[in-house]
Amino acid sequence: MALQGAVQAASDEPIQPIKPPASINVGMVELGKKLYFDPRLSKSGIMSCNTCHNLSMGGTDNIPTSVGDHWQQGPINAPTVLNSSLNLAQFWDGRAADLKAQAGGPIANPGEMAFTHTLAINVLESIPAYVREFKMVFGKNKIDIDQVTLAIAEFEKTLVTPNSRFDQWLLGNKAALTQQEQEGYALFKDSGCVACHNGEAVGGNSFQKMGIVEPYKGKMSDGRAAVTGKDEDRFNFKVPTLRNVEMTYPYFHDGAANTLTEAVDVMGRLQLGKKFTKDENAKIVAFLKTLTGEQPNFTLPILPPSSDTTPRPTPFK
Amino acid sequence: MALQGAVQAASDEPIQPIKPPASINVGMVELGKKLYFDPRLSKSGIMSCNTCHNLSMGGTDNIPTSVGDHWQQGPINAPTVLNSSLNLAQFWDGRAADLKAQAGGPIANPGEMAFTHTLAINVLESIPAYVREFKMVFGKNKIDIDQVTLAIAEFEKTLVTPNSRFDQWLLGNKAALTQQEQEGYALFKDSGCVACHNGEAVGGNSFQKMGIVEPYKGKMSDGRAAVTGKDEDRFNFKVPTLRNVEMTYPYFHDGAANTLTEAVDVMGRLQLGKKFTKDENAKIVAFLKTLTGEQPNFTLPILPPSSDTTPRPTPFK
Ligand code: HEC
Ligand code: HEC
Ligand code: HEC
Ligand code: HEC
Ligand SMILES: [Ca+2]
Ligand SMILES: [Ca+2]
Repeated sequence: MALQGAVQAASDEPIQPIKPPASINVGMVELGKKLYFDPRLSKSGIMSCNTCHNLSMGGTDNIPTSVGDHWQQGPINAPTVLNSSLNLAQFWDGRAADLKAQAGGPIANPGEMAFTHTLAINVLESIPAYVREFKMVFGKNKIDIDQVTLAIAEFEKTLVTPNSRFDQWLLGNKAALTQQEQEGYALFKDSGCVACHNGEAVGGNSFQKMGIVEPYKGKMSDGRAAVTGKDEDRFNFKVPTLRNVEMTYPYFHDGAANTLTEAVDVMGRLQLGKKFTKDENAKIVAFLKTLTGEQPNFTLPILPPSSDTTPRPTPFK
Repeated sequence: MALQGAVQAASDEPIQPIKPPASINVGMVELGKKLYFDPRLSKSGIMSCNTCHNLSMGGTDNIPTSVGDHWQQGPINAPTVLNSSLNLAQFWDGRAADLKAQAGGPIANPGEMAFTHTLAINVLESIPAYVREFKMVFGKNKIDIDQVTLAIAEFEKTLVTPNSRFDQWLLGNKAALTQQEQEGYALFKDSGCVACHNGEAVGGNSFQKMGIVEPYKGKMSDGRAAVTGKDEDRFNFKVPTLRNVEMTYPYFHDGAANTLTEAVDVMGRLQLGKKFTKDENAKIVAFLKTLTGEQPNFTLPILPPSSDTTPRPTPFK
């Protein structure tokens, strides 16, 4: 009865608890995990997905814009890969439909891993243990980029973070949140934050304009308009997930806000025309920190060594 | 009786099996593991020990010379950290007495992590979970660089790789090596390789001249002479460990040899005046590959998030 009540209550809330992934291809995940950590998918041989989406640090690099091949400065803040499978689309402007479509991007992006898909496949094909593992997982005799992105995407599907204190509270453990945190959640709902930050990921499920009531003063990119070509989509971005937001500093697409205090203040003013008091801000921040869930929990993958015929990385060319 | 015979046999060999570490401070190891993976010990915020000594890849970066802060090209090949606790001294020229003395170096090296010890301590002191963990481990109220290097060194002591097929063979499992591998080991002994590559680490326990019979044609650094100031130490280097050598390509202090075949050929000619046949070379290489031991086996560490007062990294300054 009590449990049923709690479940009932949870489903009335604008935020739902994260569920562990329901259907996972384990062989594909193990392969994708290796690829995610493998710097040989980059031209330099030292940059992997985990360089910019560091799973020890909330799936981000925690700098305003990323460092790419040859120390190029990236154009935009790297979003977390945690819970990114829950997003309606990938990238700030949503230009990739899903994780598979996304995963090919950075490998061949000259400002990121600066490689080509052909060269990446050549590298993988030259490593006997990879050849065997791809064959076991996909049952084909040749590796192709589709298999690579499928495996990485399958691994990323495991990167959900259930069991945050907030989810425990949603699921009926009313002792999981302090009074201050509950008041923060009430403010988050009552002020209108949940209009955009809702659902399982507390975001990630719509594109919204940055700067509704007041314009944003940071470095602005076109946002969603770059994809749709529509003027009304300028400065629209995919609403970021607030899951694990305590770990994904700095904030906003340009990484200009260093602290949650600052981000909450900006959101209140720009999106809702609301100036929070110091106390209200602190409560919302306290609530946001309860959204930190279980972080990735797996053994550091050991990568198969290159063979004599593996093309060598060229970090300084 | 049979076991005793095997142990007897093992101790007659010039190479001894690796033993797991005998005395480890577990709290210190767990802290050191986090620090080893923490890119906030670098100026840019993206470079950790694991960037250049990637534990997924044999504890190296597998490129001829490392990429440092601002993509600076390093002067020398990054040696593996695996089994480095067994070395008589650290660095190619042995200028650091031990792992603790070594660990402070890269943080403050402008060509590597480009930070300062003071700034690194400021970062750690600003992260409440680190402050608590240091206090638990060291029982002091302030973090200092000594504690940092002690913890990293203690973690590195765990990075030994026992139970290679070769060690299984040494310990009595005669089926652990193929005929070819055993013949390779016989050649390795009979040709004189064991004069320099011996002991638990199959190296790491003496400084030797590179180019005894024939001079080395690669980019040469001063080697040991830079430390001793003695002319006879020019071109002397710490003999590298051959444990896990299959994973620590490219080879030599300048990373000029891409394959084991090439490294073995060079060693034969330059150190022993011996030109191996293709078949002999293949046998030695097959033996060397049996020296790959158990790789680090631990859960990816999750790092405590920065706080509002943590100084932010400056990757582009
Ligand atoms: C050099 C840094 C860098 C590397 C390497 C990198 N990424 Fe990214 N990643 C970014 C940046 C920056 C963005 C945001 C780009 C945008 O939105 O326009 C991004 C976006 C993403 C997203 C979208 C998340 C979201 O919520 O929209 C995913 C998923 C992702 N990356 C996964 C990967 C994978 C998988 C790899 C390796 C194959 C990888 N990344 C390599 C920097 C990097
Ligand atoms: C009208 C939609 C909308 C409303 C309402 C809204 N947000 Fe946002 N939120 C966004 C968008 C869009 C972004 C991304 C903006 C950018 O990066 O430029 C964002 C970003 C954030 C971020 C930074 C996340 C990150 O990882 O960078 C935080 C924190 C945040 N919002 C909290 C709040 C809070 C708290 C409220 C209520 C006071 C709120 N938001 C109200 C749409 C909204
Ligand atoms: C930018 C690349 C880079 C980073 C970052 C880096 N190292 Fe190194 N490391 C090297 C290079 C290159 C050498 C060899 C230098 C020499 O011998 O003169 C080396 C040498 C070593 C050695 C000596 C091994 C031996 O057999 O002599 C150890 C141990 C070591 N590093 C540990 C660490 C630790 C711990 C950190 C982090 C605190 C770290 N390294 C950060 C590149 C790096
Ligand atoms: C007189 C001492 C000496 C002898 C004999 C010797 N080596 Fe070496 N070995 C060294 C030194 C010193 C280096 C490092 C040279 C450098 O980096 O410039 C080295 C490096 C190597 C490397 C590369 C390791 C790495 O990680 O870079 C391999 C492989 C190797 N030796 C195998 C052999 C084999 C096989 C033999 C016998 C044919 C042999 N060595 C004989 C001293 C010796
Ligand atoms: Ca961010
Ligand atoms: Ca090497």
